Amino acid sequence: MNLNYPDGRKFNQPSNKPALSSTKKKILFGDRGMTLEEEINESNKYYRSHDIAVIYKKPTPIQIVKVDYPKRSRAVIKEAYFRQASTTDYNGIYNGYYVDFEAKETKHKNTFPLKNFHQHQIDHLKACQKQGGVCFVIIKYVLLKRYFIMPAQNLITYWDNQNQDGAKSIQFKQIVDCSIEINSSYNPTLPYIEAVQQLIDNEKEK
Amino acid sequence: MNLNYPDGRKFNQPSNKPALSSTKKKILFGDRGMTLEEEINESNKYYRSHDIAVIYKKPTPIQIVKVDYPKRSRAVIKEAYFRQASTTDYNGIYNGYYVDFEAKETKHKNTFPLKNFHQHQIDHLKACQKQGGVCFVIIKYVLLKRYFIMPAQNLITYWDNQNQDGAKSIQFKQIVDCSIEINSSYNPTLPYIEAVQQLIDNEKEK
Repeated sequence: MNLNYPDGRKFNQPSNKPALSSTKKKILFGDRGMTLEEEINESNKYYRSHDIAVIYKKPTPIQIVKVDYPKRSRAVIKEAYFRQASTTDYNGIYNGYYVDFEAKETKHKNTFPLKNFHQHQIDHLKACQKQGGVCFVIIKYVLLKRYFIMPAQNLITYWDNQNQDGAKSIQFKQIVDCSIEINSSYNPTLPYIEAVQQLIDNEKEK
Repeated sequence: MNLNYPDGRKFNQPSNKPALSSTKKKILFGDRGMTLEEEINESNKYYRSHDIAVIYKKPTPIQIVKVDYPKRSRAVIKEAYFRQASTTDYNGIYNGYYVDFEAKETKHKNTFPLKNFHQHQIDHLKACQKQGGVCFVIIKYVLLKRYFIMPAQNLITYWDNQNQDGAKSIQFKQIVDCSIEINSSYNPTLPYIEAVQQLIDNEKEK
């Protein structure tokens, strides 16, 4: 890992140059300079190509207002707006299990602000859990270069308690205590499915 | 059902007026004037609000080229293009099962052209099946007002055979034989989860 490659990209900024960035990725190792989204997308590609899991990031929801249809050329969207997603960003299937998660980066070191989430994402995670899905959050501490898989249930508890106890963030120690840490790797970049399997095993033991 | 309300909308045309169309929907009954996409979206809303299943249509993938950030106002996308989706349109979870499907309307009466699908959709359905997902296609015969749930395995077989036997379409009778027919209803508009349960039961019997 190389701490000299700080991530200059904005959080959750959509990457709109797929061709370009995939060329660039060939010379990258591990998580060097990659956003969490890119690391997960690369890992998902690996998991799909190795028949391990079929998981995708959902496209950013866009409200289209104006489209031009030029002759002999493809349609051009001329006016559109970003819409707030009603679900989490990632879902798919792993070995018969429905998997659903959100991914968040933070530049904090000791805490994780709950304002990183929206009510509808919490509601969605609750609903998927009720149906028997494997639901969690991947949190990347950008400056610490550490990654955690926190079960959705823990996030939901912290979220639901924030108005009672006034805690607007989760402390780093609390995250360490309830999460599975994953290390960035080469192939896949972020081997998070191992942690998903552990979540499934833990659930079975209960 | 009312055959006097022909559906004038283009197939797969994204509905960009959510507020307006939801007002409009209140005075609609059954499938009157609704596209298959709208019928499924309405049904998914019903299933979510009744804790039956959590299934969404994925947003249309868009390649964003130019965004303006006006002062005191939200970001405006000024140039963007439609991208081809790499997956099917719908996925989610029903009672512990990962559910994945594509929805297609046709104005044909005796046939269903295979060119309604793309190789990547077939590949995606194959990959999800391999992981143990419940995968299928909802086909709406617009003029006949009939709806069928065809297991992905049957579609895959017809797709893979088309280069050998030259059949570029599936005959209506073949669809009837391998599918579960569903009837449009009031709440939910299209009770397709009943057919999904039947697919699961059939699979268990094997």
